[in-house]
Amino acid sequence: MAEGIRAVQYGCGPIGLGVTSLAAHRKDIELVGAVDIDPEIVGSDLGEMADLDDKLGIVITDDAGTLLSEVKPDIAFHTTGSSFRNVYSQLEDIVRAGVNIVSTCEELSFPYKREPDLAAQLDSLAKENGVTVLGTGINPGFLMDTWPLSMTAVCRDVEEVKAVRIQDASSRRLPFQKKIGAGRTPDEFQNLIDEGTLRHVGLPESTAMIAAGLGWELDEITEEIGPVMAESQVSSPHLTVEPGQAAGVKQISHGLIAGKEVVTLEFQAYIGAPETYDAVYIKGTPNMEVVIKGGTHGDIGTAAMVVNAARRVVEAPPGLLTMKDVPVVVCTAGSSYAGYSK
Amino acid sequence: MAEGIRAVQYGCGPIGLGVTSLAAHRKDIELVGAVDIDPEIVGSDLGEMADLDDKLGIVITDDAGTLLSEVKPDIAFHTTGSSFRNVYSQLEDIVRAGVNIVSTCEELSFPYKREPDLAAQLDSLAKENGVTVLGTGINPGFLMDTWPLSMTAVCRDVEEVKAVRIQDASSRRLPFQKKIGAGRTPDEFQNLIDEGTLRHVGLPESTAMIAAGLGWELDEITEEIGPVMAESQVSSPHLTVEPGQAAGVKQISHGLIAGKEVVTLEFQAYIGAPETYDAVYIKGTPNMEVVIKGGTHGDIGTAAMVVNAARRVVEAPPGLLTMKDVPVVVCTAGSSYAGYSK
Repeated sequence: MAEGIRAVQYGCGPIGLGVTSLAAHRKDIELVGAVDIDPEIVGSDLGEMADLDDKLGIVITDDAGTLLSEVKPDIAFHTTGSSFRNVYSQLEDIVRAGVNIVSTCEELSFPYKREPDLAAQLDSLAKENGVTVLGTGINPGFLMDTWPLSMTAVCRDVEEVKAVRIQDASSRRLPFQKKIGAGRTPDEFQNLIDEGTLRHVGLPESTAMIAAGLGWELDEITEEIGPVMAESQVSSPHLTVEPGQAAGVKQISHGLIAGKEVVTLEFQAYIGAPETYDAVYIKGTPNMEVVIKGGTHGDIGTAAMVVNAARRVVEAPPGLLTMKDVPVVVCTAGSSYAGYSK
Repeated sequence: MAEGIRAVQYGCGPIGLGVTSLAAHRKDIELVGAVDIDPEIVGSDLGEMADLDDKLGIVITDDAGTLLSEVKPDIAFHTTGSSFRNVYSQLEDIVRAGVNIVSTCEELSFPYKREPDLAAQLDSLAKENGVTVLGTGINPGFLMDTWPLSMTAVCRDVEEVKAVRIQDASSRRLPFQKKIGAGRTPDEFQNLIDEGTLRHVGLPESTAMIAAGLGWELDEITEEIGPVMAESQVSSPHLTVEPGQAAGVKQISHGLIAGKEVVTLEFQAYIGAPETYDAVYIKGTPNMEVVIKGGTHGDIGTAAMVVNAARRVVEAPPGLLTMKDVPVVVCTAGSSYAGYSK
């Protein structure tokens, strides 16, 4: 433990506790504090909240400022929200405390399209304070941006990039099945879309990151979302979907140059999908087709990306970085890293 | 052209001319000189040698020193040999001229295991001269090191990494088929191994890079090479292989910790292989299986890696780097980069 990167868990919801649960088993990370604003869990032990076998001896506090100044961690695992604007003040406070950040905030993964001014402001602040900020996760952060980009390295030229993530939701937990709208009528499904609770955040960010990485100037990014309708009855251990109901969701982002679609990101999660996989298709010289058989575990993957990126972030020059700017993130579970400092 | 990275082609054999041929079509690269020691081609136009439609107006010279000092390129594409020790003095001269290097020298891709002292010496020299040196290519450089490493990012922990490259040589050129020993008797095949002409260079380097990236201390790296024997008659447009002759080659590198194999790299190229593909298998949490369907074109891939890495090398801090240390290399064909400097 003593040789690990000293990390504070900032945000103790399901994603944050997933990060904690993973980090607690890793010798390259030493958890040294936890922050949340929920009065229900403030004062609880982080290990108990994360369902670990033992307490971690880390009490969740709502006073981030005091914790960060007293503990002086190397890094904060920031897992509180999807909207860059909404979490900005939290990021600012962490940066001003001189602490590096890996965040699962989806819009932070590539904020230059949606929030260029706020991104520039955070970049300046990070540089002033000598710390590095990175938004990552599995999607956005890897499967639909960094991974497709990395596969273009072997290409002489690239015309189009498509990334696809197909998940059969049959074996997933009920909350996931509900989240993707399984079992809803078309009207109910549309209501969920209108409420904004169904949309996966991050496809436009990944689209913009791919374009930026390849040196492309997109004219437009559009996004569509709708149900995958059940054609026959499909069921999981948790629920049964009748024909005419939604089996799940399909969401696609299109990146366009002069009316031509050059980046396509397609996410489908529904009960009864014939196969679960992630894939990258590159049209170029040569064409490439790369498939992750059986797909990638979303919860483990996001927690792993956060923890595995910690070393890169601590080592990187100060500023706001994106995944396309940092050296290849790898699993650092087998490593112990002593004495990190800028 | 005027906005590209200014590059000198250092070495005008088949690999170098492949790089030239690719670079000549790219707006992000401006070829500004060429070096070779072969009197047969010194004085020839680089474009003619690379079978381009037009001359490039670049005359191949054997006086690297004068060329580099007069032209002052941003980078040299170094493609002269596989042995780090054998090409060291060339690298030294380029570095002393203040020029960054991307090299296809296989042993340079990860020289810290075989030649740690020479690697440290080159690293110091590069830092003194403010330039960056990187060895890359498709194998070593990507398929059996950087790519498998990058796929571990989504893993909580990793126990074993295996990378496999299987090529059906039936449709390849005759020189490639001869290179892999197709049509040889077992004795002839063994002679080729003993002469050292058959062995693919780089598997131990890739093995060492994977281990270093994951923070593993290998006790031993072993390598084996032998024929894939034809069981029945197999043929290509160029030659027919009888049963009992070699259809091609199989080469495997093993990385061991305490007697347990933790890294396995397997390369097979033979006439009649049922499928051509590249694959990564990770045993860990979760397990991963990733496949490049149809494999990766070796010649295009190596040239692409060299050219696509140019931007990263020019932007990187000085020193000897390996692929695991540089930000994700992507296809930069769509970009133009002006005014690169350290």
